[in-house]
Amino acid sequence: MNTAQPPPGASRPGGRTARTRQAVLDAAFQELGDGGYAALTVERIAQRSGVHAATIYRRWRTIERIVCELMVDISAEVPLPDTGALADDLRALARSIAAFYAEPRFRGLLEAVVSAAAREPAAADVLREFFEERLRLAGRMVHRAVERGELAGGADADEIMAALGAPFYYRLLIARRPIDLRLADRAAEAAWTAARAGIFTRGPQDAKPGNAELQSAESQDAEPGTADLQSAEPRNAEPGNAGGGR
Amino acid sequence: MNTAQPPPGASRPGGRTARTRQAVLDAAFQELGDGGYAALTVERIAQRSGVHAATIYRRWRTIERIVCELMVDISAEVPLPDTGALADDLRALARSIAAFYAEPRFRGLLEAVVSAAAREPAAADVLREFFEERLRLAGRMVHRAVERGELAGGADADEIMAALGAPFYYRLLIARRPIDLRLADRAAEAAWTAARAGIFTRGPQDAKPGNAELQSAESQDAEPGTADLQSAEPRNAEPGNAGGGR
Repeated sequence: MNTAQPPPGASRPGGRTARTRQAVLDAAFQELGDGGYAALTVERIAQRSGVHAATIYRRWRTIERIVCELMVDISAEVPLPDTGALADDLRALARSIAAFYAEPRFRGLLEAVVSAAAREPAAADVLREFFEERLRLAGRMVHRAVERGELAGGADADEIMAALGAPFYYRLLIARRPIDLRLADRAAEAAWTAARAGIFTRGPQDAKPGNAELQSAESQDAEPGTADLQSAEPRNAEPGNAGGGR
Repeated sequence: MNTAQPPPGASRPGGRTARTRQAVLDAAFQELGDGGYAALTVERIAQRSGVHAATIYRRWRTIERIVCELMVDISAEVPLPDTGALADDLRALARSIAAFYAEPRFRGLLEAVVSAAAREPAAADVLREFFEERLRLAGRMVHRAVERGELAGGADADEIMAALGAPFYYRLLIARRPIDLRLADRAAEAAWTAARAGIFTRGPQDAKPGNAELQSAESQDAEPGTADLQSAEPRNAEPGNAGGGR
Protein backbone atom coordinates (compact mmCIF):
# COMPACT_ATOMS: atom_id res chain seq x y z
CA MET A 1 0.00 0.00 0.00
CA ASN A 2 1.32 3.36 -1.01
CA THR A 3 1.75 5.51 2.08
CA ALA A 4 2.30 8.76 0.18
CA GLN A 5 -0.33 11.47 0.64
CA PRO A 6 -2.89 10.98 -2.15
CA PRO A 7 -3.85 14.04 -4.15
CA PRO A 8 -7.16 15.67 -3.25
CA GLY A 9 -10.00 13.75 -4.81
CA ALA A 10 -8.11 10.45 -4.92
CA SER A 11 -9.75 7.72 -2.91
CA ARG A 12 -9.30 4.08 -2.06
CA PRO A 13 -12.87 2.87 -2.50
CA GLY A 14 -14.35 1.97 0.85
CA GLY A 15 -11.12 2.80 2.67
CA ARG A 16 -10.54 5.29 5.44
CA THR A 17 -9.39 7.96 3.00
CA ALA A 18 -12.60 7.67 1.02
CA ARG A 19 -14.71 7.74 4.18
CA THR A 20 -12.88 10.80 5.48
CA ARG A 21 -13.32 12.57 2.17
CA GLN A 22 -17.03 11.77 2.09
CA ALA A 23 -17.53 12.89 5.69
CA VAL A 24 -15.86 16.23 4.98
CA LEU A 25 -17.80 16.88 1.78
CA ASP A 26 -21.10 15.85 3.43
CA ALA A 27 -20.42 18.18 6.35
CA ALA A 28 -19.50 21.04 4.02
CA PHE A 29 -22.73 20.54 2.09
CA GLN A 30 -24.83 20.55 5.26
CA GLU A 31 -23.06 23.65 6.54
CA LEU A 32 -23.74 25.39 3.23
CA GLY A 33 -27.41 24.57 3.61
CA ASP A 34 -27.48 25.92 7.17
CA GLY A 35 -25.43 29.08 6.97
CA GLY A 36 -24.42 29.63 3.36
CA TYR A 37 -20.96 30.20 2.01
CA ALA A 38 -20.27 33.31 4.07
CA ALA A 39 -20.42 31.27 7.29
CA LEU A 40 -18.49 28.24 6.01
CA THR A 41 -15.18 27.57 7.77
CA VAL A 42 -12.84 24.60 8.07
CA GLU A 43 -13.49 24.62 11.81
CA ARG A 44 -17.23 24.17 11.36
CA ILE A 45 -16.67 21.38 8.85
CA ALA A 46 -14.27 19.70 11.28
CA GLN A 47 -16.79 19.91 14.10
CA ARG A 48 -19.61 18.52 12.00
CA SER A 49 -17.64 15.77 10.27
CA GLY A 50 -15.55 14.65 13.22
CA VAL A 51 -12.45 14.95 11.01
CA HIS A 52 -9.58 16.95 12.54
CA ALA A 53 -9.21 20.45 11.12
CA ALA A 54 -5.50 19.75 10.60
CA THR A 55 -6.37 16.77 8.41
CA ILE A 56 -8.75 18.91 6.35
CA TYR A 57 -6.17 21.68 5.94
CA ARG A 58 -3.50 19.18 4.91
CA ARG A 59 -5.67 17.62 2.27
CA TRP A 60 -7.57 20.57 0.80
CA ARG A 61 -5.60 23.58 2.05
CA THR A 62 -8.51 26.03 1.47
CA ILE A 63 -12.26 26.18 1.86
CA GLU A 64 -12.41 27.11 -1.83
CA ARG A 65 -11.04 23.74 -2.90
CA ILE A 66 -13.49 21.87 -0.67
CA VAL A 67 -16.39 23.74 -2.20
CA CYS A 68 -15.24 23.10 -5.77
CA GLU A 69 -14.69 19.40 -5.12
CA LEU A 70 -18.16 19.20 -3.63
CA MET A 71 -19.68 20.78 -6.74
CA VAL A 72 -17.82 18.34 -8.98
CA ASP A 73 -19.11 15.37 -6.95
CA ILE A 74 -22.70 16.52 -6.74
CA SER A 75 -23.38 17.88 -10.18
CA ALA A 76 -21.86 14.80 -11.80
CA GLU A 77 -25.06 13.13 -10.59
CA VAL A 78 -27.28 15.14 -12.98
CA PRO A 79 -28.15 12.41 -15.50
CA LEU A 80 -27.33 12.71 -19.20
CA PRO A 81 -30.37 11.55 -21.22
CA ASP A 82 -30.41 9.39 -24.36
CA THR A 83 -33.94 9.56 -25.76
CA GLY A 84 -33.12 8.97 -29.41
CA ALA A 85 -33.78 12.58 -30.50
CA LEU A 86 -31.55 15.56 -29.75
CA ALA A 87 -34.45 17.96 -29.18
CA ASP A 88 -35.79 15.64 -26.48
CA ASP A 89 -32.34 15.02 -25.02
CA LEU A 90 -31.80 18.76 -24.70
CA ARG A 91 -35.18 19.29 -23.08
CA ALA A 92 -34.64 16.43 -20.63
CA LEU A 93 -31.20 17.70 -19.65
CA ALA A 94 -32.47 21.27 -19.29
CA ARG A 95 -35.23 20.06 -16.97
CA SER A 96 -32.71 18.13 -14.90
CA ILE A 97 -30.56 21.25 -14.57
CA ALA A 98 -33.65 23.25 -13.60
CA ALA A 99 -34.60 20.71 -10.95
CA PHE A 100 -31.05 20.71 -9.63
CA TYR A 101 -30.93 24.48 -9.16
CA ALA A 102 -34.48 24.67 -7.83
CA GLU A 103 -32.98 23.47 -4.54
CA PRO A 104 -31.64 26.39 -2.50
CA ARG A 105 -28.66 24.34 -1.33
CA PHE A 106 -27.50 23.78 -4.89
CA ARG A 107 -27.95 27.44 -5.76
CA GLY A 108 -25.86 28.26 -2.70
CA LEU A 109 -23.23 25.78 -3.82
CA LEU A 110 -23.05 27.36 -7.27
CA GLU A 111 -22.54 30.82 -5.79
CA ALA A 112 -19.91 29.45 -3.44
CA VAL A 113 -18.06 27.81 -6.31
CA VAL A 114 -18.07 30.89 -8.51
CA SER A 115 -16.87 33.01 -5.58
CA ALA A 116 -14.18 30.46 -4.78
CA ALA A 117 -12.96 30.39 -8.36
CA ALA A 118 -12.74 34.19 -8.37
CA ARG A 119 -10.43 34.10 -5.36
CA GLU A 120 -8.32 30.98 -5.85
CA PRO A 121 -6.76 29.92 -9.14
CA ALA A 122 -6.52 26.27 -8.01
CA ALA A 123 -10.27 26.23 -7.38
CA ALA A 124 -10.85 27.80 -10.78
CA ASP A 125 -8.80 25.02 -12.37
CA VAL A 126 -10.87 22.31 -10.68
CA LEU A 127 -14.02 23.99 -11.91
CA ARG A 128 -12.83 24.53 -15.48
CA GLU A 129 -11.64 20.94 -15.83
CA PHE A 130 -14.91 19.66 -14.44
CA PHE A 131 -17.08 21.69 -16.79
CA GLU A 132 -14.90 20.69 -19.74
CA GLU A 133 -15.42 17.04 -18.84
CA ARG A 134 -19.18 17.55 -18.42
CA LEU A 135 -19.32 19.32 -21.79
CA ARG A 136 -17.41 16.42 -23.35
CA LEU A 137 -19.80 13.83 -21.90
CA ALA A 138 -22.92 15.83 -22.76
CA GLY A 139 -21.49 16.34 -26.24
CA ARG A 140 -22.20 12.67 -26.94
CA MET A 141 -25.84 13.71 -27.39
CA VAL A 142 -24.72 15.87 -30.28
CA HIS A 143 -22.51 13.16 -31.78
CA ARG A 144 -25.43 10.72 -31.68
CA ALA A 145 -27.64 13.33 -33.36
CA VAL A 146 -25.05 13.74 -36.13
CA GLU A 147 -24.95 9.95 -36.58
CA ARG A 148 -28.75 9.91 -36.83
CA GLY A 149 -28.62 12.68 -39.43
CA GLU A 150 -30.41 15.26 -37.27
CA LEU A 151 -27.49 17.69 -37.50
CA ALA A 152 -24.78 18.28 -40.10
CA GLY A 153 -21.36 16.76 -39.45
CA GLY A 154 -19.65 20.01 -38.46
CA ALA A 155 -21.91 20.61 -35.45
CA ASP A 156 -19.88 21.93 -32.52
CA ALA A 157 -20.96 19.87 -29.51
CA ASP A 158 -19.28 22.17 -26.97
CA GLU A 159 -21.06 25.23 -28.30
CA ILE A 160 -24.45 23.55 -28.38
CA MET A 161 -24.12 22.32 -24.81
CA ALA A 162 -22.84 25.73 -23.67
CA ALA A 163 -25.86 27.34 -25.33
CA LEU A 164 -28.12 24.97 -23.41
CA GLY A 165 -26.50 25.71 -20.05
CA ALA A 166 -25.83 29.44 -20.35
CA PRO A 167 -29.39 30.68 -19.62
CA PHE A 168 -29.40 28.94 -16.22
CA TYR A 169 -26.22 30.60 -15.04
CA TYR A 170 -27.33 33.97 -16.36
CA ARG A 171 -30.61 33.64 -14.49
CA LEU A 172 -28.96 32.56 -11.23
CA LEU A 173 -25.81 34.67 -11.12
CA ILE A 174 -26.68 37.80 -13.10
CA ALA A 175 -30.46 38.29 -13.20
CA ARG A 176 -30.58 36.67 -9.74
CA ARG A 177 -34.08 35.30 -10.09
CA PRO A 178 -35.30 31.74 -9.56
CA ILE A 179 -35.19 29.00 -12.17
CA ASP A 180 -38.48 27.73 -13.58
CA LEU A 181 -39.49 25.03 -16.02
CA ARG A 182 -40.25 27.61 -18.68
CA LEU A 183 -36.62 28.74 -18.64
CA ALA A 184 -35.55 25.12 -19.10
CA ASP A 185 -37.84 24.47 -22.04
CA ARG A 186 -36.91 27.71 -23.79
CA ALA A 187 -33.20 27.13 -23.25
CA ALA A 188 -33.60 23.71 -24.87
CA GLU A 189 -35.68 25.02 -27.77
CA ALA A 190 -33.34 27.93 -28.42
CA ALA A 191 -30.24 25.70 -28.39
CA TRP A 192 -31.94 23.19 -30.67
CA THR A 193 -33.22 25.82 -33.10
CA ALA A 194 -29.82 27.53 -33.36
CA ALA A 195 -28.09 24.16 -33.76
CA ARG A 196 -30.51 23.15 -36.53
CA ALA A 197 -29.89 26.49 -38.24
CA GLY A 198 -26.19 25.62 -38.36
CA ILE A 199 -25.04 28.46 -36.11
CA PHE A 200 -22.90 26.23 -33.88
CA THR A 201 -20.75 24.74 -36.60
CA ARG A 202 -17.03 24.13 -36.71
CA GLY A 203 -15.47 25.29 -39.94
CA PRO A 204 -13.25 27.84 -41.66
CA GLN A 205 -14.64 30.62 -39.49
CA ASP A 206 -12.94 28.91 -36.55
CA ALA A 207 -9.79 30.77 -37.48
CA LYS A 208 -11.34 33.23 -34.99
CA PRO A 209 -11.07 36.36 -37.11
CA GLY A 210 -11.84 38.64 -34.21
CA ASN A 211 -9.08 37.66 -31.81
CA ALA A 212 -6.69 40.30 -33.06
CA GLU A 213 -9.27 43.02 -32.58
CA LEU A 214 -10.07 41.89 -29.08
CA GLN A 215 -6.41 41.55 -28.18
CA SER A 216 -5.83 45.15 -29.10
CA ALA A 217 -8.81 46.16 -27.01
CA GLU A 218 -7.05 44.56 -24.02
CA SER A 219 -4.20 46.99 -24.25
CA GLN A 220 -6.42 50.04 -24.28
CA ASP A 221 -6.29 51.83 -21.00
CA ALA A 222 -9.20 54.14 -21.67
CA GLU A 223 -12.91 53.62 -21.06
CA PRO A 224 -14.76 50.42 -21.91
CA GLY A 225 -12.58 49.82 -24.94
CA THR A 226 -15.36 49.30 -27.43
CA ALA A 227 -14.02 51.64 -30.09
CA ASP A 228 -12.33 48.87 -32.09
CA LEU A 229 -15.47 46.86 -32.40
CA GLN A 230 -17.96 49.68 -32.67
CA SER A 231 -16.64 50.58 -36.08
CA ALA A 232 -16.36 46.99 -37.27
CA GLU A 233 -18.46 46.36 -40.36
CA PRO A 234 -20.94 43.50 -40.09
CA ARG A 235 -19.19 40.37 -41.31
CA ASN A 236 -20.60 38.40 -44.18
CA ALA A 237 -23.22 35.91 -43.14
CA GLU A 238 -21.71 32.53 -42.39
CA PRO A 239 -22.70 29.46 -44.41
CA GLY A 240 -25.05 28.15 -41.76
CA ASN A 241 -26.59 31.49 -40.94
CA ALA A 242 -30.36 31.26 -40.86
CA GLY A 243 -30.99 34.88 -39.91
CA GLY A 244 -33.25 37.00 -42.06
CA GLY A 245 -34.29 40.61 -42.04
CA ARG A 246 -30.85 42.13 -42.52
CA MET B 1 -29.74 72.59 0.78
CA ASN B 2 -30.60 69.33 2.42
CA THR B 3 -27.91 68.43 4.94
CA ALA B 4 -29.12 64.87 5.52
CA GLN B 5 -26.76 62.07 4.50
CA PRO B 6 -27.62 61.20 0.89
CA PRO B 7 -28.17 57.55 0.06
CA PRO B 8 -25.29 55.74 -1.66
CA GLY B 9 -25.25 56.62 -5.31
CA ALA B 10 -26.95 59.98 -4.84
CA SER B 11 -24.85 62.90 -5.96
CA ARG B 12 -25.03 66.65 -6.28
CA PRO B 13 -23.53 67.07 -9.74
CA GLY B 14 -20.13 68.68 -9.46
CA GLY B 15 -20.41 68.97 -5.69
CA ARG B 16 -18.12 67.55 -3.05
CA THR B 17 -20.31 64.48 -2.57
CA ALA B 18 -20.09 63.65 -6.26
CA ARG B 19 -16.33 64.20 -6.30
CA THR B 20 -15.84 62.02 -3.24
CA ARG B 21 -17.95 59.28 -4.76
CA GLN B 22 -16.02 59.41 -8.02
CA ALA B 23 -12.66 59.38 -6.23
CA VAL B 24 -13.64 56.29 -4.24
CA LEU B 25 -14.98 54.41 -7.26
CA ASP B 26 -11.93 55.35 -9.36
CA ALA B 27 -9.60 54.16 -6.62
CA ALA B 28 -11.53 50.91 -6.21
CA PHE B 29 -11.30 50.28 -9.95
CA GLN B 30 -7.55 50.91 -9.99
CA GLU B 31 -7.04 48.66 -6.98
CA LEU B 32 -9.01 45.91 -8.71
CA GLY B 33 -6.73 46.21 -11.70
CA ASP B 34 -3.61 46.02 -9.53
CA GLY B 35 -4.44 43.32 -7.02
CA GLY B 36 -7.82 41.86 -7.91
CA TYR B 37 -10.80 41.47 -5.66
CA ALA B 38 -9.04 39.28 -3.10
CA ALA B 39 -6.71 42.15 -2.18
CA LEU B 40 -9.34 44.91 -2.20
CA THR B 41 -9.94 46.60 1.17
CA VAL B 42 -11.54 49.85 2.29
CA GLU B 43 -8.16 50.87 3.71
CA ARG B 44 -6.45 50.56 0.33
CA ILE B 45 -9.24 52.50 -1.35
CA ALA B 46 -8.95 55.20 1.33
CA GLN B 47 -5.20 55.46 0.81
CA ARG B 48 -5.48 55.68 -2.95
CA SER B 49 -8.46 58.06 -3.09
CA GLY B 50 -7.48 60.33 -0.23
CA VAL B 51 -10.98 59.87 1.21
CA HIS B 52 -11.08 58.91 4.90
CA ALA B 53 -11.85 55.26 5.53
CA ALA B 54 -14.53 56.34 8.03
CA THR B 55 -16.27 58.33 5.31
CA ILE B 56 -16.19 55.32 2.99
CA TYR B 57 -17.56 53.01 5.67
CA ARG B 58 -20.33 55.46 6.54
CA ARG B 59 -21.44 55.79 2.96
CA TRP B 60 -21.04 52.27 1.57
CA ARG B 61 -20.69 50.12 4.70
CA THR B 62 -19.08 47.20 2.81
CA ILE B 63 -16.58 46.58 0.04
CA GLU B 64 -19.30 44.55 -1.68
CA ARG B 65 -21.49 47.60 -2.16
CA ILE B 66 -18.61 49.66 -3.54
CA VAL B 67 -17.86 46.98 -6.10
CA CYS B 68 -21.48 46.67 -7.21
CA GLU B 69 -21.89 50.43 -7.54
CA LEU B 70 -18.72 50.52 -9.63
CA MET B 71 -20.09 47.86 -11.97
CA VAL B 72 -23.35 49.76 -12.37
CA ASP B 73 -21.46 52.95 -13.26
CA ILE B 74 -19.04 51.36 -15.69
CA SER B 75 -21.19 48.94 -17.60
CA ALA B 76 -23.86 51.58 -18.14
CA GLU B 77 -21.32 53.00 -20.59
CA VAL B 78 -21.63 50.04 -22.98
CA PRO B 79 -23.61 51.70 -25.80
CA LEU B 80 -27.00 50.43 -26.96
CA PRO B 81 -27.06 50.43 -30.78
CA ASP B 82 -29.90 51.48 -33.08
CA THR B 83 -28.98 50.33 -36.59
CA GLY B 84 -32.48 49.91 -37.97
CA ALA B 85 -32.39 46.09 -37.97
CA LEU B 86 -32.59 43.87 -34.88
CA ALA B 87 -30.07 41.32 -36.20
CA ASP B 88 -27.52 44.11 -36.60
CA ASP B 89 -28.42 45.70 -33.26
CA LEU B 90 -27.88 42.36 -31.53
CA ARG B 91 -24.54 41.81 -33.25
CA ALA B 92 -23.34 45.32 -32.43
CA LEU B 93 -24.32 44.98 -28.77
CA ALA B 94 -22.73 41.53 -28.53
CA ARG B 95 -19.48 42.93 -29.93
CA SER B 96 -19.57 45.78 -27.42
CA ILE B 97 -20.04 43.30 -24.58
CA ALA B 98 -17.16 41.21 -25.97
CA ALA B 99 -14.89 44.25 -26.14
CA PHE B 100 -15.88 45.23 -22.60
CA TYR B 101 -14.96 41.85 -21.12
CA ALA B 102 -11.82 41.51 -23.23
CA GLU B 103 -10.24 43.87 -20.71
CA PRO B 104 -8.90 41.97 -17.70
CA ARG B 105 -10.00 44.73 -15.32
CA PHE B 106 -13.62 44.36 -16.39
CA ARG B 107 -13.45 40.58 -16.10
CA GLY B 108 -12.07 41.07 -12.59
CA LEU B 109 -14.88 43.48 -11.81
CA LEU B 110 -17.49 40.98 -12.95
CA GLU B 111 -16.04 38.26 -10.74
CA ALA B 112 -15.89 40.68 -7.83
CA VAL B 113 -19.51 41.65 -8.32
CA VAL B 114 -20.78 38.08 -8.51
CA SER B 115 -18.78 37.17 -5.41
CA ALA B 116 -20.08 40.23 -3.61
CA ALA B 117 -23.67 39.41 -4.49
CA ALA B 118 -23.19 35.87 -3.16
CA ARG B 119 -22.12 37.25 0.20
CA GLU B 120 -24.23 40.36 0.70
CA PRO B 121 -27.95 40.61 -0.05
CA ALA B 122 -27.77 44.41 -0.38
CA ALA B 123 -25.11 44.04 -3.08
CA ALA B 124 -27.24 41.43 -4.82
CA ASP B 125 -30.16 43.89 -4.84
CA VAL B 126 -28.05 46.62 -6.46
CA LEU B 127 -26.95 44.16 -9.11
CA ARG B 128 -30.41 42.76 -9.81
CA GLU B 129 -31.96 46.22 -10.14
CA PHE B 130 -29.18 47.33 -12.43
CA PHE B 131 -29.49 44.36 -14.77
CA GLU B 132 -33.27 44.76 -14.83
CA GLU B 133 -32.84 48.37 -15.89
CA ARG B 134 -30.27 47.43 -18.54
CA LEU B 135 -32.60 44.72 -19.85
CA ARG B 136 -35.41 47.27 -19.99
CA LEU B 137 -33.30 49.77 -21.95
CA ALA B 138 -31.88 47.13 -24.28
CA GLY B 139 -35.39 45.81 -24.77
CA ARG B 140 -36.16 48.93 -26.81
CA MET B 141 -34.27 47.25 -29.65
CA VAL B 142 -36.87 44.52 -29.58
CA HIS B 143 -39.79 46.96 -29.38
CA ARG B 144 -38.44 48.82 -32.43
CA ALA B 145 -38.09 45.49 -34.27
CA VAL B 146 -41.72 44.69 -33.49
CA GLU B 147 -42.76 48.12 -34.79
CA ARG B 148 -40.78 47.46 -37.98
CA GLY B 149 -42.50 44.10 -38.37
CA GLU B 150 -39.32 42.05 -37.90
CA LEU B 151 -40.79 40.15 -34.95
CA ALA B 152 -44.33 39.26 -33.93
CA GLY B 153 -46.02 41.43 -31.31
CA GLY B 154 -45.68 38.96 -28.44
CA ALA B 155 -41.87 38.95 -28.55
CA ASP B 156 -40.47 38.92 -25.00
CA ALA B 157 -37.76 41.59 -24.94
CA ASP B 158 -36.32 40.48 -21.60
CA GLU B 159 -35.87 36.91 -22.78
CA ILE B 160 -34.27 37.92 -26.05
CA MET B 161 -31.79 40.21 -24.33
CA ALA B 162 -31.05 37.56 -21.69
CA ALA B 163 -30.39 35.06 -24.48
CA LEU B 164 -27.93 37.51 -26.02
CA GLY B 165 -26.04 38.09 -22.78
CA ALA B 166 -26.07 34.61 -21.26
CA PRO B 167 -23.24 33.09 -23.36
CA PHE B 168 -20.79 35.75 -22.16
CA TYR B 169 -21.40 35.07 -18.49
CA TYR B 170 -21.28 31.32 -19.04
CA ARG B 171 -17.94 31.67 -20.82
CA LEU B 172 -16.45 33.94 -18.15
CA LEU B 173 -17.83 32.49 -14.92
CA ILE B 174 -18.41 28.82 -15.69
CA ALA B 175 -16.24 27.71 -18.62
CA ARG B 176 -13.66 30.26 -17.44
CA ARG B 177 -12.16 30.89 -20.84
CA PRO B 178 -11.60 34.20 -22.64
CA ILE B 179 -14.20 35.99 -24.72
CA ASP B 180 -13.65 36.23 -28.47
CA LEU B 181 -15.47 37.86 -31.35
CA ARG B 182 -16.76 34.50 -32.54
CA LEU B 183 -18.63 34.04 -29.27
CA ALA B 184 -20.19 37.47 -29.74
CA ASP B 185 -21.34 36.82 -33.28
CA ARG B 186 -22.76 33.41 -32.45
CA ALA B 187 -24.54 34.71 -29.37
CA ALA B 188 -26.16 37.36 -31.55
CA GLU B 189 -27.09 34.91 -34.32
CA ALA B 190 -28.49 32.36 -31.88
CA ALA B 191 -30.60 34.96 -30.06
CA TRP B 192 -31.86 36.37 -33.35
CA THR B 193 -32.65 32.94 -34.82
CA ALA B 194 -34.54 31.81 -31.71
CA ALA B 195 -36.40 35.13 -31.55
CA ARG B 196 -37.40 34.86 -35.21
CA ALA B 197 -38.59 31.31 -34.60
CA GLY B 198 -40.95 32.67 -31.93
CA ILE B 199 -39.34 30.88 -29.00
CA PHE B 200 -39.14 33.98 -26.82
CA THR B 201 -42.80 34.91 -26.95
CA ARG B 202 -45.11 36.06 -24.20
CA GLY B 203 -48.43 34.26 -24.28
CA PRO B 204 -50.69 31.70 -22.63
CA GLN B 205 -47.71 29.51 -21.79
CA ASP B 206 -46.60 32.27 -19.40
CA ALA B 207 -48.85 30.72 -16.80
CA LYS B 208 -45.55 28.93 -16.04
CA PRO B 209 -46.91 25.38 -15.95
CA GLY B 210 -43.78 24.01 -14.40
CA ASN B 211 -43.60 26.10 -11.25
CA ALA B 212 -45.56 23.63 -9.17
CA GLU B 213 -43.23 20.81 -10.16
CA LEU B 214 -40.14 22.82 -9.32
CA GLN B 215 -41.62 24.03 -6.05
CA SER B 216 -42.07 20.47 -4.92
CA ALA B 217 -38.50 19.70 -5.93
CA GLU B 218 -37.40 22.42 -3.52
CA SER B 219 -38.80 20.59 -0.56
CA GLN B 220 -37.05 17.34 -1.37
CA ASP B 221 -34.19 16.73 0.95
CA ALA B 222 -32.66 13.86 -0.98
CA GLU B 223 -30.17 13.87 -3.84
CA PRO B 224 -30.32 16.30 -6.77
CA GLY B 225 -34.11 16.27 -6.75
CA THR B 226 -34.57 15.51 -10.42
CA ALA B 227 -37.09 12.71 -9.99
CA ASP B 228 -40.12 14.97 -10.52
CA LEU B 229 -38.86 16.25 -13.81
CA GLN B 230 -37.16 13.12 -15.08
CA SER B 231 -40.49 11.40 -15.48
CA ALA B 232 -42.20 14.43 -17.00
CA GLU B 233 -43.53 13.72 -20.46
CA PRO B 234 -42.35 16.08 -23.18
CA ARG B 235 -44.88 18.90 -23.35
CA ASN B 236 -46.68 19.68 -26.54
CA ALA B 237 -44.77 21.97 -28.83
CA GLU B 238 -45.63 25.60 -28.19
CA PRO B 239 -47.23 27.73 -30.90
CA GLY B 240 -44.01 29.46 -31.82
CA ASN B 241 -41.87 26.36 -31.74
CA ALA B 242 -39.76 26.08 -34.87
CA GLY B 243 -37.93 22.90 -33.89
CA GLY B 244 -38.02 19.94 -36.23
CA GLY B 245 -36.79 16.38 -36.03
CA ARG B 246 -38.90 15.27 -33.09
